[in-house]
Amino acid sequence: MSKKRIITVSREFGSGGHTVAKLIADKLGYACYDKELVERIAKESGFDEAFVRERGEYASASNSFLFALVAGSSGGFSVSDQIYIAQNNVIKELAAKEPCVIVGRCADYILRDRDDCLHTFFHADKDFRARHIVEKYGERSDSIEKRIKDKDDRRKAYYKHYTGRNWGDVQNYHISLDTSVLGFEQCAEIVANAIKNQK
Amino acid sequence: MSKKRIITVSREFGSGGHTVAKLIADKLGYACYDKELVERIAKESGFDEAFVRERGEYASASNSFLFALVAGSSGGFSVSDQIYIAQNNVIKELAAKEPCVIVGRCADYILRDRDDCLHTFFHADKDFRARHIVEKYGERSDSIEKRIKDKDDRRKAYYKHYTGRNWGDVQNYHISLDTSVLGFEQCAEIVANAIKNQK
Repeated sequence: MSKKRIITVSREFGSGGHTVAKLIADKLGYACYDKELVERIAKESGFDEAFVRERGEYASASNSFLFALVAGSSGGFSVSDQIYIAQNNVIKELAAKEPCVIVGRCADYILRDRDDCLHTFFHADKDFRARHIVEKYGERSDSIEKRIKDKDDRRKAYYKHYTGRNWGDVQNYHISLDTSVLGFEQCAEIVANAIKNQK
Repeated sequence: MSKKRIITVSREFGSGGHTVAKLIADKLGYACYDKELVERIAKESGFDEAFVRERGEYASASNSFLFALVAGSSGGFSVSDQIYIAQNNVIKELAAKEPCVIVGRCADYILRDRDDCLHTFFHADKDFRARHIVEKYGERSDSIEKRIKDKDDRRKAYYKHYTGRNWGDVQNYHISLDTSVLGFEQCAEIVANAIKNQK
């Protein structure tokens, strides 16, 4: 087995996975690709950053069948497909270049054939996520429960459409942790140690 | 949130979850209920230990619909139901009594309403599991791939029937680890530290 040198971070909306990813990268002295990943995909695909951020992880409809219809309706490659292809290229290039932490965007699937990746998943209980989302993004007119459910459904549909896998299936990750029980710092420590402790 | 003092260990067949559970218990000075759990359930239900070991985690058929037919066919409580009720009682009693590690038998679901449980899941890649199973239980006439698939399918069906949940859904566990990448010792250390690091 190759030594793990790339860490993919998948995370539930509101679980603090972004914060944990940054902490892991800091502990290891690795680059962390999250916002910068979006910038690169935007550049590669020609689409706007905000659009890439939204459409590079979320289905436009929460139903995967409906999404497939929308995503595939333009004859050739749909907008979603074009973004997916760009992020596929960018993520593969980054992984080939240097040890790093890559957040979201199906990186666990895109890099599935590389033996040097440690795939991680962060989740949290609903109350924790609700508090974290309101703290980070503020209140909105629709209920927090609805916002969480909508994001979860659309992320699941997106992931299923492009990977054929089920989002949050434990077998897809080497380490899956509940941030609401373990805390961000301990989660990051566990992953950083898994990299450091390799023989 | 209460301090976690009970650890449930769910595991794929061949992942070494039993070994990890023992290591966790040793590190914490906790009792580990695995073989002894089967003995207690056998005593409570009146069934033989070998029968409880087999039927307390595995559906008799790999199809959950067929299993439901078989399990529910005797009018009142089926044999499977009687074992499930006994293990439900024994697991709840153990958890109420003292800090401990409880292996398998839907303990994560049975104790879901207790706030003082840390739910863990151990899995591994197929090659690792195959080697581990042959080392531990020896070769048999049927292929190792078939043995793994059969065990997985029957455990999934059992879990679905009695809990309504999907086996290996990441949200059911606070810590899920791949033993083939992290090693038994590191897996145990992560869980023991999660208990020790609580404030």
